[in-house]
Amino acid sequence: MMRIALDAMGSDGAPATEVAGALHALSHEAGDVTVVLVGDRARIAAELDRHAASEGDRLEIVHAAERVSPNESPAAIVRRKPGSSLVTGVGLHRRGQVDAFVSAGPTGAVMAASVFLLKRLPGVDRPAVGTLIPTTSRAHMLMLDAGANVDCRPRHLLQFALLGHVYAQDLMGRPKPRIGLLNIGSEPEKGNERTVEAYRLLSQSGLNFIGNVEGRDIIHGRCDVLVTDGFAGNVLLKFYESVAGFVIRVMDREQERIRTPLDRSTIEILDYAEYGGAPLLGVNGVSVICHGRSPPKAIGKAIGVAAKAVRSSMIGHIARYLAETAARIP
Amino acid sequence: MMRIALDAMGSDGAPATEVAGALHALSHEAGDVTVVLVGDRARIAAELDRHAASEGDRLEIVHAAERVSPNESPAAIVRRKPGSSLVTGVGLHRRGQVDAFVSAGPTGAVMAASVFLLKRLPGVDRPAVGTLIPTTSRAHMLMLDAGANVDCRPRHLLQFALLGHVYAQDLMGRPKPRIGLLNIGSEPEKGNERTVEAYRLLSQSGLNFIGNVEGRDIIHGRCDVLVTDGFAGNVLLKFYESVAGFVIRVMDREQERIRTPLDRSTIEILDYAEYGGAPLLGVNGVSVICHGRSPPKAIGKAIGVAAKAVRSSMIGHIARYLAETAARIP
Repeated sequence: MMRIALDAMGSDGAPATEVAGALHALSHEAGDVTVVLVGDRARIAAELDRHAASEGDRLEIVHAAERVSPNESPAAIVRRKPGSSLVTGVGLHRRGQVDAFVSAGPTGAVMAASVFLLKRLPGVDRPAVGTLIPTTSRAHMLMLDAGANVDCRPRHLLQFALLGHVYAQDLMGRPKPRIGLLNIGSEPEKGNERTVEAYRLLSQSGLNFIGNVEGRDIIHGRCDVLVTDGFAGNVLLKFYESVAGFVIRVMDREQERIRTPLDRSTIEILDYAEYGGAPLLGVNGVSVICHGRSPPKAIGKAIGVAAKAVRSSMIGHIARYLAETAARIP
Repeated sequence: MMRIALDAMGSDGAPATEVAGALHALSHEAGDVTVVLVGDRARIAAELDRHAASEGDRLEIVHAAERVSPNESPAAIVRRKPGSSLVTGVGLHRRGQVDAFVSAGPTGAVMAASVFLLKRLPGVDRPAVGTLIPTTSRAHMLMLDAGANVDCRPRHLLQFALLGHVYAQDLMGRPKPRIGLLNIGSEPEKGNERTVEAYRLLSQSGLNFIGNVEGRDIIHGRCDVLVTDGFAGNVLLKFYESVAGFVIRVMDREQERIRTPLDRSTIEILDYAEYGGAPLLGVNGVSVICHGRSPPKAIGKAIGVAAKAVRSSMIGHIARYLAETAARIP
């Protein structure tokens, strides 16, 4: 049995998108998964009616009257909006009433509430947002941090690598994840002071560190886990999404013009919409953040990511791995 | 009359690529432009023979026996390789024997030689590499710094903006260039300490500052000049190039499969190869850096960029603008 709380009021299309996403997830997940929809009970119930679904064995509603809006200060969210769907959902996880939390609400607020209520794991100075980046090899790459930490020290980058290592093992099926450091040259001395020192730490970490990865290598997926500060990570991620969207629109138009279906599978692997859910790694719980513009399928996939993290005992593995590493690297 | 020195031994395909590029430029430029090919005289002459061209009114050779290789330390290049085509070419410019210098040699070495020999303009702490980024609006955007300065202070970002402002006016035909600051959110307080302070400086600069520009805005060309540190700038640039190349290869294959020509003009605007030449801005001279893998057309375009910079008196404008700004912003 596993219970996953879904912030039903998070996305731009809430709660319709979330309800559809929950149903999508339930149709794909094993029967032991229950989704707990957190938000305005009447609106959620009305959406369930539209789908001719109901609260049943695998779907519950926990009422939360308020909603977090994008322009609220994340830092104060737990204190100022305790009755919001977001804070209520994280609270359920903190109290052990659910095993994981998923939200398409404002990233900063999801992070702040998760860090504040679930707490950081020992050995983690700064939890990081991981994002699955599609690559031309059709295997994804986990990039972290994707925007939570705009200024990072070398030891934060090392911690990101440790977190990503376990994630890649448990959720991506990579037994010996290749760790890369995002940099502007391939040699160890390239980049800035931060990357040079991070390179040194990663080399001594016992991780399968493959060295620096340049911007041009990203799309080819040279590594399984790409470590970066949140500034470059976020710029890259948002740019990636916009380019993928642009290319797909161009191909749509072209297909219409020549009245011939194009094989767009190679391009569509670049499209983020297929890949729901950025895990917040380093907190004592499973918290998965979705894009505010997520379609239902992306929400469904994020619930799948959360389920997989629970099923694989990822949090326990991370905690153990961090403790082992701390004993090895002073 | 204008003389432009071209490092004939810089690119991966040197000197064939450079000779073809020079001929390409001469066929497009006005008759007042002379290209001075700097490098191995015999090899350059042999290439000219292949094109049935010769040293004539608009083409000269200056012999330089050595060549800078990519793994040499840029810092020591002037001292250690004074006889290289690269250092010889910059030297011609320093002594006023040519009006501009173009090279597809190692970026760091071109920069180091240019800064060392041409010197920085007053008011410039760190010269920056500007790159023209194609956008879906079909107008290019100048991004700087594209990799010269991996750690930047806010005042460096302001200086990049001032340099970019004049470049956009003189070379891109934008009378009132829109300046954007690359950041991970749109509000002034977003980003890190550096971007928050840079935002403040730019707001007070008298420039047409439009605020923060996010990764997702880049492809749509929301500004004319995008200011960033060289780390994020370089990662972005290299990623951009690789994605464009990937998409074009996919469309090539698709075109062959369906045996129908696709209109690729919209995609091809993303391809860097069309856009030759990244100006090194902030030195007392015109120095244009090309990609090591540049095709002849890109070299030709870079010579065109250099010619335009000379013709518009860009260096004088930059010097005057920096002096005016220094008087206004203490």
